[in-house]
Amino acid sequence: MIVVLRKGSGETEIQEVVGRLSEAGFSVHISQGVEKSLIGAIGDRSRIEELSLEALSCVEKVVPILAPYKLVSREFHPEDSVITVGGQRIGGPEIQVMAGPCAVESREQILETAAAVKEAGANFLRGGAFKPRTSPYSFQGLGEEGLRYLAEAREKTGLLVVTEVVDARDIELVASYADILQVGARNMQNFLLLKELSMLDKPVLLKRGLSATLEEWMMAAEYIMAGGNYQVIFCERGIRTFETYTRNTLDLTMVPALQLLSHLPVIVDPSHGTGKWQLVPPMAQAALAAGADGLIVEVHPCPEKAVSDGKQSLNLENFREMMKRLEKIARVLGRSLKGVAGE
Amino acid sequence: MIVVLRKGSGETEIQEVVGRLSEAGFSVHISQGVEKSLIGAIGDRSRIEELSLEALSCVEKVVPILAPYKLVSREFHPEDSVITVGGQRIGGPEIQVMAGPCAVESREQILETAAAVKEAGANFLRGGAFKPRTSPYSFQGLGEEGLRYLAEAREKTGLLVVTEVVDARDIELVASYADILQVGARNMQNFLLLKELSMLDKPVLLKRGLSATLEEWMMAAEYIMAGGNYQVIFCERGIRTFETYTRNTLDLTMVPALQLLSHLPVIVDPSHGTGKWQLVPPMAQAALAAGADGLIVEVHPCPEKAVSDGKQSLNLENFREMMKRLEKIARVLGRSLKGVAGE
Amino acid sequence: MIVVLRKGSGETEIQEVVGRLSEAGFSVHISQGVEKSLIGAIGDRSRIEELSLEALSCVEKVVPILAPYKLVSREFHPEDSVITVGGQRIGGPEIQVMAGPCAVESREQILETAAAVKEAGANFLRGGAFKPRTSPYSFQGLGEEGLRYLAEAREKTGLLVVTEVVDARDIELVASYADILQVGARNMQNFLLLKELSMLDKPVLLKRGLSATLEEWMMAAEYIMAGGNYQVIFCERGIRTFETYTRNTLDLTMVPALQLLSHLPVIVDPSHGTGKWQLVPPMAQAALAAGADGLIVEVHPCPEKAVSDGKQSLNLENFREMMKRLEKIARVLGRSLKGVAGE
Amino acid sequence: MIVVLRKGSGETEIQEVVGRLSEAGFSVHISQGVEKSLIGAIGDRSRIEELSLEALSCVEKVVPILAPYKLVSREFHPEDSVITVGGQRIGGPEIQVMAGPCAVESREQILETAAAVKEAGANFLRGGAFKPRTSPYSFQGLGEEGLRYLAEAREKTGLLVVTEVVDARDIELVASYADILQVGARNMQNFLLLKELSMLDKPVLLKRGLSATLEEWMMAAEYIMAGGNYQVIFCERGIRTFETYTRNTLDLTMVPALQLLSHLPVIVDPSHGTGKWQLVPPMAQAALAAGADGLIVEVHPCPEKAVSDGKQSLNLENFREMMKRLEKIARVLGRSLKGVAGE
Repeated sequence: MIVVLRKGSGETEIQEVVGRLSEAGFSVHISQGVEKSLIGAIGDRSRIEELSLEALSCVEKVVPILAPYKLVSREFHPEDSVITVGGQRIGGPEIQVMAGPCAVESREQILETAAAVKEAGANFLRGGAFKPRTSPYSFQGLGEEGLRYLAEAREKTGLLVVTEVVDARDIELVASYADILQVGARNMQNFLLLKELSMLDKPVLLKRGLSATLEEWMMAAEYIMAGGNYQVIFCERGIRTFETYTRNTLDLTMVPALQLLSHLPVIVDPSHGTGKWQLVPPMAQAALAAGADGLIVEVHPCPEKAVSDGKQSLNLENFREMMKRLEKIARVLGRSLKGVAGE
Repeated sequence: MIVVLRKGSGETEIQEVVGRLSEAGFSVHISQGVEKSLIGAIGDRSRIEELSLEALSCVEKVVPILAPYKLVSREFHPEDSVITVGGQRIGGPEIQVMAGPCAVESREQILETAAAVKEAGANFLRGGAFKPRTSPYSFQGLGEEGLRYLAEAREKTGLLVVTEVVDARDIELVASYADILQVGARNMQNFLLLKELSMLDKPVLLKRGLSATLEEWMMAAEYIMAGGNYQVIFCERGIRTFETYTRNTLDLTMVPALQLLSHLPVIVDPSHGTGKWQLVPPMAQAALAAGADGLIVEVHPCPEKAVSDGKQSLNLENFREMMKRLEKIARVLGRSLKGVAGE
Repeated sequence: MIVVLRKGSGETEIQEVVGRLSEAGFSVHISQGVEKSLIGAIGDRSRIEELSLEALSCVEKVVPILAPYKLVSREFHPEDSVITVGGQRIGGPEIQVMAGPCAVESREQILETAAAVKEAGANFLRGGAFKPRTSPYSFQGLGEEGLRYLAEAREKTGLLVVTEVVDARDIELVASYADILQVGARNMQNFLLLKELSMLDKPVLLKRGLSATLEEWMMAAEYIMAGGNYQVIFCERGIRTFETYTRNTLDLTMVPALQLLSHLPVIVDPSHGTGKWQLVPPMAQAALAAGADGLIVEVHPCPEKAVSDGKQSLNLENFREMMKRLEKIARVLGRSLKGVAGE
Repeated sequence: MIVVLRKGSGETEIQEVVGRLSEAGFSVHISQGVEKSLIGAIGDRSRIEELSLEALSCVEKVVPILAPYKLVSREFHPEDSVITVGGQRIGGPEIQVMAGPCAVESREQILETAAAVKEAGANFLRGGAFKPRTSPYSFQGLGEEGLRYLAEAREKTGLLVVTEVVDARDIELVASYADILQVGARNMQNFLLLKELSMLDKPVLLKRGLSATLEEWMMAAEYIMAGGNYQVIFCERGIRTFETYTRNTLDLTMVPALQLLSHLPVIVDPSHGTGKWQLVPPMAQAALAAGADGLIVEVHPCPEKAVSDGKQSLNLENFREMMKRLEKIARVLGRSLKGVAGE
């Protein structure tokens, strides 16, 4: 890190800072400029905050140089990480599509959707059994009953199941039904949940928080990896900005940015990212072209009857059409979207 | 709500929308304009989303008219709510100051701070025992040991204790030591936590999420009230914007805005709101002048040795100075800051 | 528009609102609900603001229903607008690439770049002669000398010239050299500039402002069209958000959103949109896949010697590589990127 | 500045960077860490960008250490700058209130408002003659006729006139009528306008751009000072965030932040900052308590008939009430709001 001292800081003040740094095990280099003095310090990045150097009145600012994350970084693991689950690979040349309704509403709904998305080329079924809702008066999900329907759909179709866990107390339960556990945007910094997932031996789909920076998102993945679970998949789903025409602002640049900085796979959720079903197919295409390893998309047999997120759900016909176009784009990018029938 | 139909929508489409609305118990009025037709619908606001009208291709947009919250609104409860805890009132003419370190670090630290802030005029002691931290490598708090120190400080000084609960499983434990339970910014939409707090008989200090709108914040309070706990205190602590000079952007306008829309008390956290101790006293003054019912402020006997948030913590001397100035401002506003010695 | 009255508004207050609306030529319908009364009013959208209804204490809010723009809307002109300039079409099946340096630095630089981007398949040369710079101490552009170099490059290569105009007094001068005039992000709401460009008979490339909503951006185009110049091209170049890893947040969803709402062509600037050259090729691909009609890209023969924006400029080799990949993507999308040699 | 090299950068690459820095006159210090090498460079801050070091593939990032502004900084001018205009001081112990309508609408309107705000204690009259409007179909201001009414009001009342200039070609005209020229939020980075104002001998009120960082805002002031005009007054008027209940998010923390970093006076506009007249008085109070040197407030004799901004304008009675409360707060802060009658 670089410690920038205020103009006019004297020798005593410099020595106080140097003393505190040395005591904390940092090796130190002082550079006295005409305008300001700087102290360069090399040591344990994670100890910077507890040094509280900026509380000293002679310190103008502290500029960290090294990234705060380790295990998620490409420097730590230069090759792409490929996560294998139920025979499917995420992060390899295959594009993986996860499709299904926002919420599991009934056995019929989930079985019908599963059969259709399987036929259209998806390998994963999504669907929420525990729903975090903005209003206490809204539908809160079917709970374990919903998980059972998802598992039944897996048996019938061979699709793997992705579903959200919202409470650390439910991890065991959800993990007993699901193939991938999803951490929702509102829980990206629920550090307790992250820590308990770090002890699980199942992949975790980590959605970006509504106002999370790239660095914070990577630190959330670091939490999961630090506990020993290296199977983390990033999912960009849009951030909150001043633009209100779309539900969120889908920040696709995070896809190549994560691929520069990290080795973990990254997928995109164009449904929450846009909030309008008409915008989903072009943004799904764009996600692949930006380099995403997959997509998670809301699909409903009858969006106008969905209990939630109907306006951002594709119907089965639109999903099939989209998959055909995605397959062509995947091919030209040198990747494959296996399940889709060619023409 | 108003349903705006796309230009060119025909009678069949209008009737489909009307049918769905009537079925859901809404009373309906159609207004056919030259350019667009509108359908006004009066009924249960909480059912709008599950109608998924915007999934219909003839629907351009749905404009809700009524607010989604009820119990938090001033229309529901026109008088200001005053919350009484341990003989102190929040939301009345008294300004309440809650002060103390970011984290409970040791028995000595907390007792020294408590004695000092009490003497300076605070009635509440703050301090975190469970710390949600962005990095898995940072100090995570003393846990129950920290709670015990806070309770000891209360016994010694008479200060009431405010501390954060981050896990629903800890509510009982934290409630056995604390007078007010704090929900942190990152948990404002941890709906499970909110629901379990709604069954508690202790006041909840509800911090605004980093990217929460006023409406979402009020809905989070609604969660707590909907379960029966009417003792909710709003706490503005800054939102995330593009400005990086300050840690957050303290949105003080929320104070008078909440007072227009809600009956619940509102306090301000200028420490997290600014991230720099030099900016805390002027923004604490501004908070009172904007109408806040109190403040929650980070104070540390030795900020440059704090394990966290040192750069936004006031030392004891600066806190005392600030309190004297706040007392004068309170008085000119017709409020009182009791504990502060006059001059 | 819908006027929502406060709870408890009486007949006199309703009649005052109705009177003001009728006087302004609106036809009015009153709907008295149990909780609130609404007044629906049909008339001239542009007169809403000057009615200042929200200044009346009985009015809770005014909800506009119709869009404020007319000429830019797809409802006004259902077919896509195709803009033809110097034999090139923008908005048709062809993908148009505009490439060149941030700033015109010298005759050699611009001629070398022009030859290279032409060979790689671009039809337009970009380059700034008048540079709006954040610091008064930075290079401000070559002015008319720069325009002459651009014109010379056009003569030598057949490329058409796109360049920014920053001052209404320079419009005539810039138009005498350029084929398309660019309005920069910081001038998107420089209404004087827009008005004078509305009287020009040349296409205008209208970049989105850093914090402009979709609606404000469309209104800026409306300014140009309202004066009679229908040749407007939208250019998404990223918005300002809390994310600082990228220079801006490229909001690609605006591409399909604009295509829903407007008939005008839309292109994308992945250079400013990301701020890092490594991120430009994947985001250029993503832009095409999202449906963009073209790209504007910063290219420099030697980015590490560029006087500005070096870190977001592609070198000639990287640009050529990118163009080859873009050509394949264009083809699979059913569009063409003509100038690029096949394989 | 600190240049951070990518892991694995070799001696040749380090020497290339060092060479380029030395050539540009920087003195250089190399620090080779275990993980990364750093190069510290001391020299002309304004040359950093044109070095384009981040275009080199061995450079991970460049971290500037010194601020890019000079003349606006408190380091350059440690004492507060006090600007004197027409016998009034801005930036001294006096609180200055600038009040009047959004737009000059008629002679009667402006004379009535002027008399009333003068009586209530304001020393400055505000009012727009040239209005930048989001829609081409909205009222665009009375132009020079409006300026004449303002001048007439000054003659009659002794109030000084503050009014916006939107076009560099109008500077001379506006300056011939006004005492202070206002640069609106949308023109904060209209660098041409700033440059021409830098040659004027009149104070400039520089509003913060909707998405301008503190540093960019200070750089805009630097533009004006760099040309020789040292009479710059900052005006915080709110920034654009995701919160839509208020028109903008009034960022009051900028007041003490500017006072730390700069010597120039700073005032606040609570009318645009909130967008709702009910929120103006508490936020005006908060602005003073945060340390502002003054306020600029929209006041209209009949807000519900205002052609623009009616909903954020105070009527005369509310303005008078507010001034009385402000006077008391000013006094307790050790400042004065002279014109207000005591009680």
